[in-house]
Amino acid sequence: MPASYAYLGPEGTFTEVALRTLPEAATRQLIPYVSVQSALDAVRNGEAEAAFVPIENSVEGGITTTLDELVAGTPLMIYREVLLSITFALLVRPGTKLSDIKTVSAHPAAQPQVRNWLKAHLPEAVWESAASNADAARLVQEGRYDAAFAGEFAATRYGLTALETGIHDAENAQTRFVLVGRPARPAAPTGADKTSVVLWQRDDHPGGLRDLLGEFATRGVNLMLLQSRPTGAGIGNYCFCIDAEGHISDRRMAEALMGLKRICREVRFLGSYPRAEVSAADVAVPLPGTSDLEFVAASDWVARCQDGRF
Amino acid sequence: MPASYAYLGPEGTFTEVALRTLPEAATRQLIPYVSVQSALDAVRNGEAEAAFVPIENSVEGGITTTLDELVAGTPLMIYREVLLSITFALLVRPGTKLSDIKTVSAHPAAQPQVRNWLKAHLPEAVWESAASNADAARLVQEGRYDAAFAGEFAATRYGLTALETGIHDAENAQTRFVLVGRPARPAAPTGADKTSVVLWQRDDHPGGLRDLLGEFATRGVNLMLLQSRPTGAGIGNYCFCIDAEGHISDRRMAEALMGLKRICREVRFLGSYPRAEVSAADVAVPLPGTSDLEFVAASDWVARCQDGRF
Amino acid sequence: MPASYAYLGPEGTFTEVALRTLPEAATRQLIPYVSVQSALDAVRNGEAEAAFVPIENSVEGGITTTLDELVAGTPLMIYREVLLSITFALLVRPGTKLSDIKTVSAHPAAQPQVRNWLKAHLPEAVWESAASNADAARLVQEGRYDAAFAGEFAATRYGLTALETGIHDAENAQTRFVLVGRPARPAAPTGADKTSVVLWQRDDHPGGLRDLLGEFATRGVNLMLLQSRPTGAGIGNYCFCIDAEGHISDRRMAEALMGLKRICREVRFLGSYPRAEVSAADVAVPLPGTSDLEFVAASDWVARCQDGRF
Amino acid sequence: MPASYAYLGPEGTFTEVALRTLPEAATRQLIPYVSVQSALDAVRNGEAEAAFVPIENSVEGGITTTLDELVAGTPLMIYREVLLSITFALLVRPGTKLSDIKTVSAHPAAQPQVRNWLKAHLPEAVWESAASNADAARLVQEGRYDAAFAGEFAATRYGLTALETGIHDAENAQTRFVLVGRPARPAAPTGADKTSVVLWQRDDHPGGLRDLLGEFATRGVNLMLLQSRPTGAGIGNYCFCIDAEGHISDRRMAEALMGLKRICREVRFLGSYPRAEVSAADVAVPLPGTSDLEFVAASDWVARCQDGRF
Repeated sequence: MPASYAYLGPEGTFTEVALRTLPEAATRQLIPYVSVQSALDAVRNGEAEAAFVPIENSVEGGITTTLDELVAGTPLMIYREVLLSITFALLVRPGTKLSDIKTVSAHPAAQPQVRNWLKAHLPEAVWESAASNADAARLVQEGRYDAAFAGEFAATRYGLTALETGIHDAENAQTRFVLVGRPARPAAPTGADKTSVVLWQRDDHPGGLRDLLGEFATRGVNLMLLQSRPTGAGIGNYCFCIDAEGHISDRRMAEALMGLKRICREVRFLGSYPRAEVSAADVAVPLPGTSDLEFVAASDWVARCQDGRF
Repeated sequence: MPASYAYLGPEGTFTEVALRTLPEAATRQLIPYVSVQSALDAVRNGEAEAAFVPIENSVEGGITTTLDELVAGTPLMIYREVLLSITFALLVRPGTKLSDIKTVSAHPAAQPQVRNWLKAHLPEAVWESAASNADAARLVQEGRYDAAFAGEFAATRYGLTALETGIHDAENAQTRFVLVGRPARPAAPTGADKTSVVLWQRDDHPGGLRDLLGEFATRGVNLMLLQSRPTGAGIGNYCFCIDAEGHISDRRMAEALMGLKRICREVRFLGSYPRAEVSAADVAVPLPGTSDLEFVAASDWVARCQDGRF
Repeated sequence: MPASYAYLGPEGTFTEVALRTLPEAATRQLIPYVSVQSALDAVRNGEAEAAFVPIENSVEGGITTTLDELVAGTPLMIYREVLLSITFALLVRPGTKLSDIKTVSAHPAAQPQVRNWLKAHLPEAVWESAASNADAARLVQEGRYDAAFAGEFAATRYGLTALETGIHDAENAQTRFVLVGRPARPAAPTGADKTSVVLWQRDDHPGGLRDLLGEFATRGVNLMLLQSRPTGAGIGNYCFCIDAEGHISDRRMAEALMGLKRICREVRFLGSYPRAEVSAADVAVPLPGTSDLEFVAASDWVARCQDGRF
Repeated sequence: MPASYAYLGPEGTFTEVALRTLPEAATRQLIPYVSVQSALDAVRNGEAEAAFVPIENSVEGGITTTLDELVAGTPLMIYREVLLSITFALLVRPGTKLSDIKTVSAHPAAQPQVRNWLKAHLPEAVWESAASNADAARLVQEGRYDAAFAGEFAATRYGLTALETGIHDAENAQTRFVLVGRPARPAAPTGADKTSVVLWQRDDHPGGLRDLLGEFATRGVNLMLLQSRPTGAGIGNYCFCIDAEGHISDRRMAEALMGLKRICREVRFLGSYPRAEVSAADVAVPLPGTSDLEFVAASDWVARCQDGRF
C-alpha cells in the first residue's frame, strides 16, 4: 500500500492545514486532488492509503459532496476527524491598500463567512468566485483580482500580504474534516468516540423515522448529526447520515446498530473514531442502565436465567 | 428429590382435574395442600418437586395470592401452564329437587360465575361460602346445605347427583394453572411459548412505565398479561407481573429482558414454558426484523464491522 | 335526592371511620350495606346520593370488587378519596389474657396484615374467617371466638377490650376509599388532583399498551395506578384501570384523554378529584412544555398561524 | 402591493418554466433576480408580491440557500409548490456536430445530472461552469464554449439548436420549487396538502430528536422531508426543516404543531399548501383515530366529561 494521503487540493488551503495537524501526516506523502470525488477514488482504486476531505462546517452543515461519496459506491470508512477553526485573511499584493480594492475573490463557500465583513469594509467590491481560496490567491498574485480571502498561511506561498486577519462573520466558525480509508478494524475506543452510519428506511409510514431514532434512544445513545441525503430514487426519497456518540465496541452502540440493521432496508457502517478536540473527561456519563458494565451484567443475568441458575 | 407434586386442595376440585391433564402427573404422588402458600412452601423446603396452583382466571384476573407468592420470597419458576374451561354442576343429595333447595354453597370465587344462573333459577336460595367447592360438596353430603356448585367430577366422590351441569355465567370461563418448581433450565422452546417476569421500576416519572413496556415493543415482543401488585412499600407502590409471548431463548425476548434488567430496579425471571392449548402453527409470525435469523444476521454484521470486514 | 351515603358495612369498620373523616358525612345519613355491589347499586337506583367503598390498599392492591363495579354497568363517578392508615387492635372479652386465646377471627383481608404478629405472639391460635372485622368482634362478644382483629374503635360497640393496639405487619399499611356518585361536573381542580379512567384496547399487538401509555407520557402526565381487570371476553382479555396525576381541566390531561379516546376501543371516565393528604405545594412541577400556560400559548400560536398572523 | 413575482433568474431557466405552470403567474409581472437571497429580499422589502425559488431536487436534496433564507430573517411563508421533471438538452450553434464539441458548460448543479451521459458521449469534453444554464447558452451563442446543457426551451432565445434532448442520468430527476410570500392566511385545505416548519431543539440529549418526531407520530402525521441546517451557533448545532403531510387546519397537524411548540425552543411555521401533482384521491387514509371526525368526537367527549354529562 502506498504511503500516501490524498486530500482535497489545491495546496495551501484549510484542508491541507487541517491534514497537517494529524501526526501520521508527517510520515506520508500528501497529494492534492481536484475534487472530493477524485480524492476518494484514489483510495478506492488503491492509489492512496487514505483521503482527507471536509465533511461538515458550521455555516453550510454537512458537505453534501463528501456525504454522497460515502453513501454510495464501494464502502469506505472514516478513520479520524479533525476540527479546524476557520478565519480568513484578506490577501493582497504588497502595497495594495484597502481603498484600492475593486475586486475580491475566494471559493464560493467562503462568501457566506465574510459577507458581513465585506458589507462593512468593502461595500463596493465585486465578488469573483474562484475554484478554491488558494486559487483566488494565485489570481491575485497574477493581477487578475485585487484581493483574496484565504487562510493567512497562503500569503507566503503566493507572495502576498495579509491586509487583515481573523475575518469571520460567525462566531465559532469551524470545519470538520475526515480521514477516509478502506474498511478496516476501527481504532480502539478512547472513551470519547463517534460512530457514523447511513440508514435507509424500509418503507415510509407515520412514526417510521421516529422508530429508527428510537433504536438509539432506547439504548441511551446520543445523536450528534442527522443529515438526510437523496437516495437517487426520485424526489422525497432520502437516506440518513447519522453521527452518534460512542464507539461500535460500546455495548449500547453495538445493540443500537443491530436494532437498526434489523429494521432498516440497509445500514452502511462508516466507522468509529475518536472525537476531535474532546477528551474522555468531557464526555457525558452514560445514562443509568447503558454502561458497558450494566450491559454485561444484564447479559450474564439472562444467560443464568437461560441456564436455570438464578 | 421426592417424586411428588403439591397442589391446592382439597381433592376433587378443578385444580386436581387440571393437574391430571399433565402427562407427568401420572408418575408423581399428588398431595393436596390447604393453601397456595403452603403448596409453594412445600416446593421451597424440598417436600415437593413442584406445586400446581391457579394463577389467572377469566372472571377474577390474576390470582393475587399466587402472584404475591411468586413475586416475593425464595425464587421459584413456572414449568408449565394448563388452561381449564370452568363450568359448574349443581350437586345435591340423590332425590333432592330444584324446588327443595334453600341453601347453596361453594367457594366465594364461584359466586360471580353462577350469579346469573342463581338469579334465574334459585332466586330465593341463601348463599353459604365454603373453603372450597369440594368442601361445599362434602357439607351437602353431610346435610348442612342443600346444594353445592362444584365440578361435575366431584359428584361421585361425595355420593351426590348433578341436578344440572354446564352452569357458567360467562362464555369462555377458563382458569389458568401453573406448575411451579425451583429454578432450573427452562423447557426447550416449542415455538409457542410464554415468558413470565416481575418488574420493579427504579423510580416513578412520566413515561416510566411506558419506557419499560418499550423494551418489549422495540423488539417486537407482544404482552399477554400485565398485572400490578403492591410492593409492600406503601400504597401506590407497585411491581408488575408480566407474561410476554416467546421464550427466553428467542433472541428478541433475551434482548428485551436484558434491556429491562438494565433499566429496572429489579427483574425477577419466572420462567419460559409452552403456551397451553396453542400450537406453533397458531402463533403470529414475528414482526419484520425480530426473528432469530434477523437477530443473528444483525449480530454477525456488527461483529464484521467491529472487525473491519464489511 | 336523598341526603344519604351508602357505605360498605357493617358499622364499626375502617370504612365507616374513613367515611366520617369527610366533612360532608356529618350532614348525611350514613347507611351500611352488605357489599360493595349493593352500596353502589343504591347509588345507581337513587336510594343513596353516593357510596363510600374501599378501592385500593397497600397489601392487596386494587380492590377488584370495587374496580369491577366501576368498570361495568351504568357509569358512576368518583367524587372524593380518603386515605386511612390501618392498624389493628386485638379485641377480647374483658378478663381474657393472651395465653387464653385459642381462636382468632377477622375478615380474610386482615390476615396478611397480622400474620407476622400472630406467628410471634399466638403461634398456636386457630384462624377463623368472619364476614367483616366488626362481625368478628361480635362473634367474640357472643363467645364464639376468643379474640378478634379489628379497629380499636370497635371495642366499645361490642363491649370488648383491646389487649394490644397498633398491630400491623407492613409499615405504612393504608387503605384508600372513594366516595362514588352519579356522573356530575367534577370538583374544581385544587392543584393536587387525580383522574381515573378505564381503557379498553382496540386490538392486541406488540407495542399496543406502550402506545396507550404514550398518550399520557407525551403530555407529561404521570401515572399513579395501573390495574388490569378481565373484560369478561375470555382469559387474557383485560381492560386497564388507570389513575393519573392531574385534573381533567388541566390541558395536558384533557389532551391525553382525547388521545386515548381516539385510539382506544372505549374509554370510561371515572372522575377527577382532590388527592387525599396531598397539598398543591407537594405536587411536582409540570415537566417543561406541559403547563396550562404553555398549552394555551401553543394553542394561540397555532391559531395565529392558521390565521396568517405570525 | 405590486403585482409582480420575483424569481431566481436569469430568464430561460427551469425556474422560469416551472413558474409559468402556475395559473396566477399569467397575471403577474415576472422579474428575474440574480440569487435566491435577492428574490426573497424583494418579497421582504415589498418590491415583489412573492418569489419563486427552487427548494429541493432529487439529486441534491434540499436547496440549502433557500432553506437557510426561510429559516432566518423576517418570517416568510410558502404559498404553493411546483414539481418539474428535469431533462437537459445539449444546445449548440447551428451546424455544430457532436464531434466538434471540445467544451461544454452549464450551472454546476447540472453536472451530477449529466455526468454519465458526458462520459459515454463526450468523454474528452472540458467542463466549464457557468452562473446558470441560461448563461451557458448565452456563452455558446457568443462562441465562448461549444455546447451548453440547458432546458430545451432555451434554444430559441439564444439562437441555438438542440443536438440531443431528454438527457438525464437519474430516472425521475425532479426539482421542487416554491412560491414564497409574506405571512398570510394559508390556502384552504385541498385534502392533499403539506405543512412546512422549522424546529429548534431546547437541548440535546439521548432521545431528544426522537421525541420531537414523536409529536408527529403520536398524532399519525407522516413526514415527507427532514433536512437539518446549521443554526450558526457552532459546528454540530442544527435546526430541522420538516415537511409533513397534511394542513395546519387538520386537527392532527394542529395538535402536533402545538406539541412541538411546547417542547421546542422555537418553531417557525412556513406554511400549509397543496401538494404538487397529487390529488386528494391519492392521499393515504388517516390512521385509525387521527381523522378530523375522531378528533372532534374525542374533544366533545372530554368536554362532556368536564361537564358531568357522560
